[in-house]
Amino acid sequence: MKAYKEMTTEELATEIEALKKEYRRYLSMELQLDMSRGKPCFDQLDLSMGMMDVLSSSADLSCEDGTDCRNYGVLGGIREAKVLIGDMMENNPDNVLIYGNSSLNVMYDQISRSYTHGVMGNTPWCKLDKVKWLCPVPGYDRHFGITEYFGIEMIPVPMLPTGPDMDMVEELVASDEAIKGIWCVPKYSNPQGYSYSDETVRRFARLKPAARDFRIYWDNAYGIHHLYDHDQDYLIEILAECKRAGNPDLVYKFASTSKITFPGGGIAALATSPNNLEDIRRQLQHQTIGYDKINQLRHVRFFKDIHGMTEHMRKHADIIRPKFEAVEQIFDENLGGLGIASWTTPKGGYFISFDAMEGCAKEIIDKAKKAGVKMTPAGSTWPYHNDPHDSNIRVAPTYPPLEDLKTAAKLFSVCVKLVSAQKLYEAAKEQ
Amino acid sequence: MKAYKEMTTEELATEIEALKKEYRRYLSMELQLDMSRGKPCFDQLDLSMGMMDVLSSSADLSCEDGTDCRNYGVLGGIREAKVLIGDMMENNPDNVLIYGNSSLNVMYDQISRSYTHGVMGNTPWCKLDKVKWLCPVPGYDRHFGITEYFGIEMIPVPMLPTGPDMDMVEELVASDEAIKGIWCVPKYSNPQGYSYSDETVRRFARLKPAARDFRIYWDNAYGIHHLYDHDQDYLIEILAECKRAGNPDLVYKFASTSKITFPGGGIAALATSPNNLEDIRRQLQHQTIGYDKINQLRHVRFFKDIHGMTEHMRKHADIIRPKFEAVEQIFDENLGGLGIASWTTPKGGYFISFDAMEGCAKEIIDKAKKAGVKMTPAGSTWPYHNDPHDSNIRVAPTYPPLEDLKTAAKLFSVCVKLVSAQKLYEAAKEQ
Repeated sequence: MKAYKEMTTEELATEIEALKKEYRRYLSMELQLDMSRGKPCFDQLDLSMGMMDVLSSSADLSCEDGTDCRNYGVLGGIREAKVLIGDMMENNPDNVLIYGNSSLNVMYDQISRSYTHGVMGNTPWCKLDKVKWLCPVPGYDRHFGITEYFGIEMIPVPMLPTGPDMDMVEELVASDEAIKGIWCVPKYSNPQGYSYSDETVRRFARLKPAARDFRIYWDNAYGIHHLYDHDQDYLIEILAECKRAGNPDLVYKFASTSKITFPGGGIAALATSPNNLEDIRRQLQHQTIGYDKINQLRHVRFFKDIHGMTEHMRKHADIIRPKFEAVEQIFDENLGGLGIASWTTPKGGYFISFDAMEGCAKEIIDKAKKAGVKMTPAGSTWPYHNDPHDSNIRVAPTYPPLEDLKTAAKLFSVCVKLVSAQKLYEAAKEQ
Repeated sequence: MKAYKEMTTEELATEIEALKKEYRRYLSMELQLDMSRGKPCFDQLDLSMGMMDVLSSSADLSCEDGTDCRNYGVLGGIREAKVLIGDMMENNPDNVLIYGNSSLNVMYDQISRSYTHGVMGNTPWCKLDKVKWLCPVPGYDRHFGITEYFGIEMIPVPMLPTGPDMDMVEELVASDEAIKGIWCVPKYSNPQGYSYSDETVRRFARLKPAARDFRIYWDNAYGIHHLYDHDQDYLIEILAECKRAGNPDLVYKFASTSKITFPGGGIAALATSPNNLEDIRRQLQHQTIGYDKINQLRHVRFFKDIHGMTEHMRKHADIIRPKFEAVEQIFDENLGGLGIASWTTPKGGYFISFDAMEGCAKEIIDKAKKAGVKMTPAGSTWPYHNDPHDSNIRVAPTYPPLEDLKTAAKLFSVCVKLVSAQKLYEAAKEQ
């Protein structure tokens, strides 16, 4: 088909009529589908049901070192969980703290702690006039939600296929002491599925921030969440690179098993330098006597080791790979060559980033919603829910069953075409 | 035996020699016993092992309303957990939020949130010059640890057998806007095992604080932790009483299953008014997508309802009642009538509060430690670890096996007698 921009006003009018008819057909189907959140689907959750059996009433709930996981104690996690999660995060177990079920909670607490007590002896952020933060865009709405909640001024930084625009990052952090952090999803980024290039990671490790309490919030949420067996992204490990670069304390690295076992009952972790760990422990000892050790033990007994976890992730990939491929194929077939949209084709993670024509995202999402397909709200991928181009849409293909997903992707394509054609038609008429 | 104070210097000298000999005998036993923390013992933990079987790989991990507990969502806890914990706390399930495994964490977060964002629209505490807190003494060291960590000035308030000195509480909160809270363990208090009288609860509900953001931190840690089947303490339910008194937003009430199921893997909760709940939810939505729902479901399936939990607590009581009674009996036999110590005889909870002669606690604890019996460090029951009388010692009888506990209590009695006799002897000589 002809690119929409090359169509005459008459051709556009005809196209719009055809699309409206098609849209009405979807309306009549009374769909109820959800492509809004990066949730594992039912089949994925079933993969981890074996975890419910590894600790029974006849099991010994003691650690290798004899600690009774049922009782109080062990701030920071049991040793064998640190080893497993250390392997998962590619970090020394000694540098890992194990938390509760939510890495978002770990990140929130990290910022809250910096706000109330400061980072490694520096002024608590609540005593500063201004705290700023770098936000690669499009990015993760819940990240932006935390910094917004703390009244931190968020500065968008464009995401490139290699990661955040590092020229801009370097210049900003070097020149402004109020900038205290940056949100990063370095591997299979949310929402693009981009993985930071070696150069990007190297430059991150060599940042020279004006603020001594600047930290990179390295949310490695999709570290082992590959879609393909062989075509996988490998990242330079950031803590090791920071150490080599002489900046050992520059990074907090986050991860969880939420999309490995159960989002509702996984374990989260933080890896960082010994100095940062000491700083965190000083606070953490007042906050809790220790997180759920039984669930930590449950994870260890289920996976045994990182090989077990890797094999497990292949099963996840087998379930969600066809979903990503189906959506991409439907976009190709329905939107390819029309010049009205572009989208990413990730090799891992949970999202596809979709860019509509400027000024169309909100309307597309509204139209899809009206026809029963829920998308992440327009603007969500930008700080303050404000996408200045009104173009980015996060597509989450994992949750719906495959056939539903195909229907949703087709309807979504119709919405994209209809809104775009109408927009071009209006523009043509005004000329 | 004669009261020590009535002994002559010579009698004291003879007594000291005999006690030294006895102490040396304990030294040679190379004991390694722990009466320092309120930890359930092995047999108590075994009571809940059935909880490890109620969710197996063949179980349906869905709530009554169809929510899949394995997946994301449900901020504030699943309905059936709210019902169970609501019954446990004597509160409407609608007024309950379920958290992770630690009520200490809930309290910490509550203060942290007040510090960073303020309570119901009031000025965040970090923007105030001064925040003060009332601390009934002797009290719980981890409570004091939180307020100290936030730089909050702690004001000791004497604990009476009826609860905190309410004349003092009423006067202080009414006159000083900087006072933002009070720590309370209203039932089987830590460390005395006192339960607040009806009058105390009524007066709490009718406080007229100068600060609009003053809250009572009502840590009902031992709400159902009775030692006896029939001789139990009942408290006026504080939220209901506050509502009746026209002060619905005055209280945050905390509880957990740490000493019901597993300290290392229980669930914690907060109950409070709809206004406070809304205030908390506004924050909580940025901190987490939801706490561990699988563990919530596990608790519900195990207990079924509050009757199941009540029966379960009787089994706990059967295990720890003999321990409390043994300690009290040994204290009676060894220290009764000597006029050098007093102690409480609680009907529930986890502690006995022991008061030695002024200026003796630290030395007693050191002596016990040297002989291999670990007690909570002297001063722990006071803010800033500063017991001005150096007399209070928290005794935790639950953790050691009964025979070990008896040995520890006997040794402890020897230490008390020896230190007291020496103190009196020195004083007599100086006269």
